[in-house]
Amino acid sequence: MSHLSEAFTRALEQVVGSAGLIQDPERMNSYLSDWRNAYRGKAALVVRPASTAEVAEVVRLCREASVALVPQGGNTGLCGGSIPDDSGTQVVLSLTRMSAIRAIDVANETITVEAGVILQRLQEAATEVGRLFPLSLGAEGSCTVGGNMATNAGGTAVLRYGNMRDLTLGLEVVLADGRVWDGLRGLRKDNTGYDLKHLFIGSEGTLGIITAAVLKLFPAVHSLTTAWVALPSPQAAVDLIGRMRTLCGDRLTGFELMSRQSVEFVLQHVTGCNDPFNEVHPWYVLIELSDTLVNANLAQMLEDGLGEALAQGEALDAVVASNDAQVAALWALREGISEAQNHEGPSLKHDISVPVSSIPAFIEATDRKLKDAFPGVRIVAYGHVGDGNLHYNISKPVGTGDVPFKAHADAIMHVIYDATIAFAGSISAEHGLGQAKREAAQHYKGAVELELMRTLKQALDPVGLMNPGKLL
Amino acid sequence: MSHLSEAFTRALEQVVGSAGLIQDPERMNSYLSDWRNAYRGKAALVVRPASTAEVAEVVRLCREASVALVPQGGNTGLCGGSIPDDSGTQVVLSLTRMSAIRAIDVANETITVEAGVILQRLQEAATEVGRLFPLSLGAEGSCTVGGNMATNAGGTAVLRYGNMRDLTLGLEVVLADGRVWDGLRGLRKDNTGYDLKHLFIGSEGTLGIITAAVLKLFPAVHSLTTAWVALPSPQAAVDLIGRMRTLCGDRLTGFELMSRQSVEFVLQHVTGCNDPFNEVHPWYVLIELSDTLVNANLAQMLEDGLGEALAQGEALDAVVASNDAQVAALWALREGISEAQNHEGPSLKHDISVPVSSIPAFIEATDRKLKDAFPGVRIVAYGHVGDGNLHYNISKPVGTGDVPFKAHADAIMHVIYDATIAFAGSISAEHGLGQAKREAAQHYKGAVELELMRTLKQALDPVGLMNPGKLL
Repeated sequence: MSHLSEAFTRALEQVVGSAGLIQDPERMNSYLSDWRNAYRGKAALVVRPASTAEVAEVVRLCREASVALVPQGGNTGLCGGSIPDDSGTQVVLSLTRMSAIRAIDVANETITVEAGVILQRLQEAATEVGRLFPLSLGAEGSCTVGGNMATNAGGTAVLRYGNMRDLTLGLEVVLADGRVWDGLRGLRKDNTGYDLKHLFIGSEGTLGIITAAVLKLFPAVHSLTTAWVALPSPQAAVDLIGRMRTLCGDRLTGFELMSRQSVEFVLQHVTGCNDPFNEVHPWYVLIELSDTLVNANLAQMLEDGLGEALAQGEALDAVVASNDAQVAALWALREGISEAQNHEGPSLKHDISVPVSSIPAFIEATDRKLKDAFPGVRIVAYGHVGDGNLHYNISKPVGTGDVPFKAHADAIMHVIYDATIAFAGSISAEHGLGQAKREAAQHYKGAVELELMRTLKQALDPVGLMNPGKLL
Repeated sequence: MSHLSEAFTRALEQVVGSAGLIQDPERMNSYLSDWRNAYRGKAALVVRPASTAEVAEVVRLCREASVALVPQGGNTGLCGGSIPDDSGTQVVLSLTRMSAIRAIDVANETITVEAGVILQRLQEAATEVGRLFPLSLGAEGSCTVGGNMATNAGGTAVLRYGNMRDLTLGLEVVLADGRVWDGLRGLRKDNTGYDLKHLFIGSEGTLGIITAAVLKLFPAVHSLTTAWVALPSPQAAVDLIGRMRTLCGDRLTGFELMSRQSVEFVLQHVTGCNDPFNEVHPWYVLIELSDTLVNANLAQMLEDGLGEALAQGEALDAVVASNDAQVAALWALREGISEAQNHEGPSLKHDISVPVSSIPAFIEATDRKLKDAFPGVRIVAYGHVGDGNLHYNISKPVGTGDVPFKAHADAIMHVIYDATIAFAGSISAEHGLGQAKREAAQHYKGAVELELMRTLKQALDPVGLMNPGKLL
C-alpha cells in the first residue's frame, strides 16, 4: 500500500516514535476524510509529530525523499484543504499531538499556543484568566488553532474582533526546507521589515507548517443583550447596522441576517425552535451587544436604537431577550439553518462577501437571475452583514430530485460567483479555497494576483511538496 | 548632472508632462532631504506622476533603463526611507500629485484614497461623513497615506484601532515590472489565497509602489475624557492599564507613559506647560477614554478606576480634565517631549517595543546598564504602554559636549537594542528601518527571518530597482 521505502518509514519512526506513526489502514481512516465526509483521499502514512523539532525533522526527511506533505488539524474544514489526494503517495502530517498552551501573559494580553490546541480549549484557557479569546465558530469543539490560522477562520464575532489573522501577533513556522522560522513575538508594534506572519496565515499549509502562535486576548465581557428584529428588506438591515454602529460602536458584537426562507426551514426541521413573532416577515436580524462593564445598560441602548428603527420603518417588529434561555432560543434560530437545510435535500453552499453597502443589490440581482434560470429554487440567504459575508445557499425546488438538481450545481455557482465579482466581492469569504474552490479561484481572480501568488509559492516552496493541489 | 540619457528623460516627460518632471536642482532640493534634514541624497531627477497608469509607465521605463526608483510621500519619515542615496543616479518618484479621494462608502465604512492624500485631509473627509479615521500622529498635516502604508504608521490610537496595517482593507500597487495589481477591495472577509496587501504594507517601497488603498472608517466619537495620573513606577503603569482595560474595554483609547525626566524637560522648555501636581512624582500616565455615545459618563468610569488604583497604591495622584482647554494642556505635556529634548542637545532616539508585561524589567535593566556605562546620561523614556512601545531617548550628561556624547551613540544603541532583543522585543516599533536601522536589523534579526525577507525581495523585485539600500 505504501509507496515509500522501508528506510524512509524507519527514519520517520525514529523521529516521531511508534506512537507518532500510523500505517494501519483502519487507524488511518479518520485522517483521510473530513468530518462531513465530503472529501476522501489516500495516504502513504500519517505522521503525528509531538514537537516543533519533530515537525522540522519530518519535513526535512520528506524533502529529501521528495514526498508531499498534507498538514492537518481537526479536519473540520469545508473545502478539503487538509485531505490528501487519491494517489496514496502523500503523507498526512497531523498536528494534534502538539497541543500545549505554552504561555499566558495576562499583562500583555497574549496566549502562546501550539497548532494542535482545540479552539474551545483556547477559549477556556482565556476565560480562566479573566480574559476573552473571541474567535467562535460551529466547529470550535473539534477544530484546531493551526487550522484556524491556516484558513484564517472567521465566525460570528468578526464584526468586532476580526478574523484569525487579526487575532495573531506572532507565529512559529516550519518552512518547506525544514528550517524553523521563530516569529513567536507578542508585540503590538514591530516595523522591522516584511510582515511574514500574514503570508502564512490563510495559506492553507501550502507555504509552510504553522506549529505555534502568539494570540491576542481581550477584556472579558460582563454584559450581553440580544434582540431579534423583523425587517422589510436587506436594505433595512444595512441601514440598521449603520444606525447601531453609530450609536453603540464596538458594543455591537453580532449582527446576523436571515431570510424568511432560512428561518422557515429551521422552524420546520429543528425541534424546539419557535417563531418569536406571530406574523411572517421577509427578513430578520439577530443583534448582539456586549460590554466589559457589569451594568452597561445595553438593553436600554438597544431599545433606543430599535425604537428609532421602528419609527423609521427600518424595523417591523423587535423582541429583546430578557434571560439566558431567550438568548439561546434566538441563537438557535440562526445556528440551526445549516442543519435544517440538509432536511430539504442537497444544499449548494456559497460563502461569498461583497461590500456591506452592496448586499441589498447583490441579493436582489442574484435572486432574480437564479429564479429566472432555475424556477422554484429555494434561496437560503443568511450571514454576517457587518462583514459583508453571506452564506448564499440553494435548495432544490419542491418536487425536484437530488440528481437533476445537482446537475445544475456548476451553473448555479457561476450565476452566484459572477454576481459576486460584479459587486467587487470574494468567492470565498470564510472557508478558504482548499480543493473545493481552487479552480473557481483560477477563473475568478485576476491574472496579476494569481501570478503574484504563484511567485510566492515558487519562492517559498520551490519543490512543491507543501500541500500540493490545494489553493493554487 | 543627470546620468540619464536624453531619450529616457524625454520618454518620462511624455508620460508625466512637463509639470510632472523636475530636473532643476533648486526645485529638486525639497525632495532630497527629509523634513528634519537628518538625511540628504542626490537624484538624477524627480518624477511626479498624476495617475496609477502614469506610475506604471514610469516604472516600466525605469526598468527598461535599469534606473533605481525611490518612492516618496510627504517626506516626514524618521529613518530616511524616502531619501535617495548619494549617487545621483536614482529617480525620486513623488506620489503627492495622486491626491484624490476616489470614493467614500459610509454603509461599508470605507474610504478609497490615493497614495498622495495628506493624512489630515483623510481624517477630515471621514469627519465630514460622521465617521472617524483613527490614525493620528505628529506629522499628520504633512505625511501622506502612501507613506503611512509604506511604513505601517502607528501613533497614539494603536491601542484601540491598530496600526495602519490594521486599518487597510485593500491596495492598488504598481509592481517592480510596471504591472498593476488591483487589490482595491473593500471586504472584511476574503479567503481566496495569500494575503498580498500585508506584504506591501510596511515594505517601505522595496517591493512595489502603493498607489491607492481602501481604508476602514469607524463610528465617530462623541464622548471623551482625559486624566493625568502620577505613578510610583512603570510596574504601576502596567497594573493600571490592566485595570482600566478590564473595566473599560475599548473605551480606553490612550495610555501614554512618561518619566519625570521627560516631563521636566517639557516644563523647562515648552512655553505655557505647567505641572498638574504640586509634588514631584517619578512617573506619569495620560489616560484617554472615548465612546460613541453622547453621554457615556466616562468621567465616572475613570474616577471609579482611578479611585481603586489610588487605594491600591498603583496611582499616587490624579486629575481628570474637565474641559477642552485642560485636555489640550495635558496632551501638550506629552506632545512637547520631543521638542523639549532638542533644547538639551542631541537626542539619541530609540523606538523600541517589548511585551507590555516586560516594560518594567526592560526599563529597570536598561536604565541601570546605561547609567553604569555612561554616568550622568539623562534617559527620556515615554511611550505607548498598551502597545509595549517606548521612545527610549537619551540626552547627554549636563556639562558634556555634543561631540563627545555623540561618540557614544553606537555603544548606547547597542545597550538598548541588546536589552530589547533580550526581552523578545523589536528595535523599530513604529518608525521602520529605512537607511537608519538597516544595518542594526541585519545584526539583530534572526538569520532565517532575514533570509525569508531576502527571498521575498528577490521574488518580487529581482532586478533590485525598488528603493535599493532601504530596509534590507
